[in-house]
Amino acid sequence: MVESTRIVLASRPVGAPTPANFRIETVELPPPAEGEVVLRTLYLSLDPYMRGRMSAAESYASPVEIDEVMVAGTVAEVLESRDPSLAEGDVVLAYSGWQSHQVVPAGAVRKLDPDKAPISTALGVLGMPGFTAYSGLLKIGQPKAGETLVVAAASGPVGSAVGQIARIKGARAIGIAGGPDKVAYVRDDLGFDAAIDHRAPDFADQLRAAVPDGIDIYFENVGGAVADAVYPLLNTYARVPVCGLIANYNAADVPEGPDRLPAFYSRILTKSVTVRGFIQSEFVKEMYKDFLRDMSGWIADGSVRYREDIVEGLENAPEAFIGLLEGRNFGKLVVRVG
Amino acid sequence: MVESTRIVLASRPVGAPTPANFRIETVELPPPAEGEVVLRTLYLSLDPYMRGRMSAAESYASPVEIDEVMVAGTVAEVLESRDPSLAEGDVVLAYSGWQSHQVVPAGAVRKLDPDKAPISTALGVLGMPGFTAYSGLLKIGQPKAGETLVVAAASGPVGSAVGQIARIKGARAIGIAGGPDKVAYVRDDLGFDAAIDHRAPDFADQLRAAVPDGIDIYFENVGGAVADAVYPLLNTYARVPVCGLIANYNAADVPEGPDRLPAFYSRILTKSVTVRGFIQSEFVKEMYKDFLRDMSGWIADGSVRYREDIVEGLENAPEAFIGLLEGRNFGKLVVRVG
Repeated sequence: MVESTRIVLASRPVGAPTPANFRIETVELPPPAEGEVVLRTLYLSLDPYMRGRMSAAESYASPVEIDEVMVAGTVAEVLESRDPSLAEGDVVLAYSGWQSHQVVPAGAVRKLDPDKAPISTALGVLGMPGFTAYSGLLKIGQPKAGETLVVAAASGPVGSAVGQIARIKGARAIGIAGGPDKVAYVRDDLGFDAAIDHRAPDFADQLRAAVPDGIDIYFENVGGAVADAVYPLLNTYARVPVCGLIANYNAADVPEGPDRLPAFYSRILTKSVTVRGFIQSEFVKEMYKDFLRDMSGWIADGSVRYREDIVEGLENAPEAFIGLLEGRNFGKLVVRVG
Repeated sequence: MVESTRIVLASRPVGAPTPANFRIETVELPPPAEGEVVLRTLYLSLDPYMRGRMSAAESYASPVEIDEVMVAGTVAEVLESRDPSLAEGDVVLAYSGWQSHQVVPAGAVRKLDPDKAPISTALGVLGMPGFTAYSGLLKIGQPKAGETLVVAAASGPVGSAVGQIARIKGARAIGIAGGPDKVAYVRDDLGFDAAIDHRAPDFADQLRAAVPDGIDIYFENVGGAVADAVYPLLNTYARVPVCGLIANYNAADVPEGPDRLPAFYSRILTKSVTVRGFIQSEFVKEMYKDFLRDMSGWIADGSVRYREDIVEGLENAPEAFIGLLEGRNFGKLVVRVG
């Protein structure tokens, strides 16, 4: 009999999540049926979209129910297999959530090759965040040589890939990050053309100075004050792929004024801007193969770099997730469970 | 020597324009040079975009300078021609503004065939507003059979064409208009599937009831409270061509809260919505020929109807324009000058 330690949603947060919204518990798992495998989680991914799943509000995916396990992409080891496609010891990409073990159908996981890349990258640069960057930038952003791109959370898994891919396509990449360490990393290690600290009092002026030809692509993954500074600088026919709005996720009430919508809408009108929300799953069928080929190549030749922020222990996942929403992580946030 | 009576911008409006922002005056025109023609204005078009030209704020076109003639598309008669391409008596489409006469290069006008359609339609259903509807709907809205479209100002020249073209393409068209006469016209004369009065206290509920399958295309030409009611009903992959925001045009200050942007942005994200501002001129080269062919055919076979609101006398243009921004016109607003 296998026991699983797991973290469930104890209550829905109002505003920012707190440790009290989570509960850790241990359950016994049923034995695997024919066609199923028993997984032991090695790494679990923490991503901003999980804040949406903690709320009951309508979104692109169903909420996590109270007392249910928090959702997450995971990298896991097969402990026992009752399916011929997988063997004990195989390492797989799964969606098994914030828990140490799970029994799932073999068809719900994808086998990884540990020799090709570090297995944790299947949750980051070679996984959902990397594909979000790749698909949204190439399909919606459509960078052209000489254009200017701006992306926030530029030291994170999505933003860092967006800027580096834009540069591969010949565009200038301006990254926005929080604090001097992240700014230095984005500029010096990732090779962005410029990096700006959104906490600087003259942030909007610094951004304006960094984009003398305006902004052709704003890859939107934060919203809030960064978007306020970006929109007035958008060029005619600018593209704004919207993959996340982390600045808004913890908002409990309709925010106070002033009403920023008319100015945004007006910029969209007068500059013929395209704003397009997307979820990476829309493009999986069309682009995932190309993504794995391109991104593996770029990592191998050094044109895309990545950084992981690894937290030890499942029990530390709630605190790490709360910090993620405040920008306390530095790189792709992953919990080492095994 | 030809005299021209003209209306110039006397001062920039703060908020809604008033008659004091305009001044009527008479000037003598220079004789035409080689290659030029003397025009006598027959009709001049009044359109919401002119409010933008009265402001000094950055937009897609330069503002009208103080003491300069207000801009407008016109239909005019050639009084005298010094160019072989045009003869006295020819009727042309020009951009000669709020004035009775003008001297322009022959190349700046396009000859109309008065036998093909009433000449005033070159300012409406067969002109810029009709092409705005046609290009924005087909290129950005991309209506498919069975989809649901919503458009406001549905008795006006853009909205009426948008809804009727959507129906030709097999979509359901829901029109929004102000007051019972316009609503009845949109539903009964234009044949929209439903029409709703945005002044009704239960407007948002009526709209929700009229779109049981949600909204696939919202052709945005007003903004404001109509947009507030529409966005929560947008379906996944909805398209929002934005050609105008008349509800905002008279705003003098940054509007008070609540801040409506987070909710709009969130809908764009969670429903993978495309919002795209556009100016019809972007599509002229690619689509104008098709537009003239299609729209002429649809008018001839009765599948597109239109309505004009004709005001007599150039001196009444300011008052008519002020009324346009308040929705007082009923159909395409045109001033008969000749």
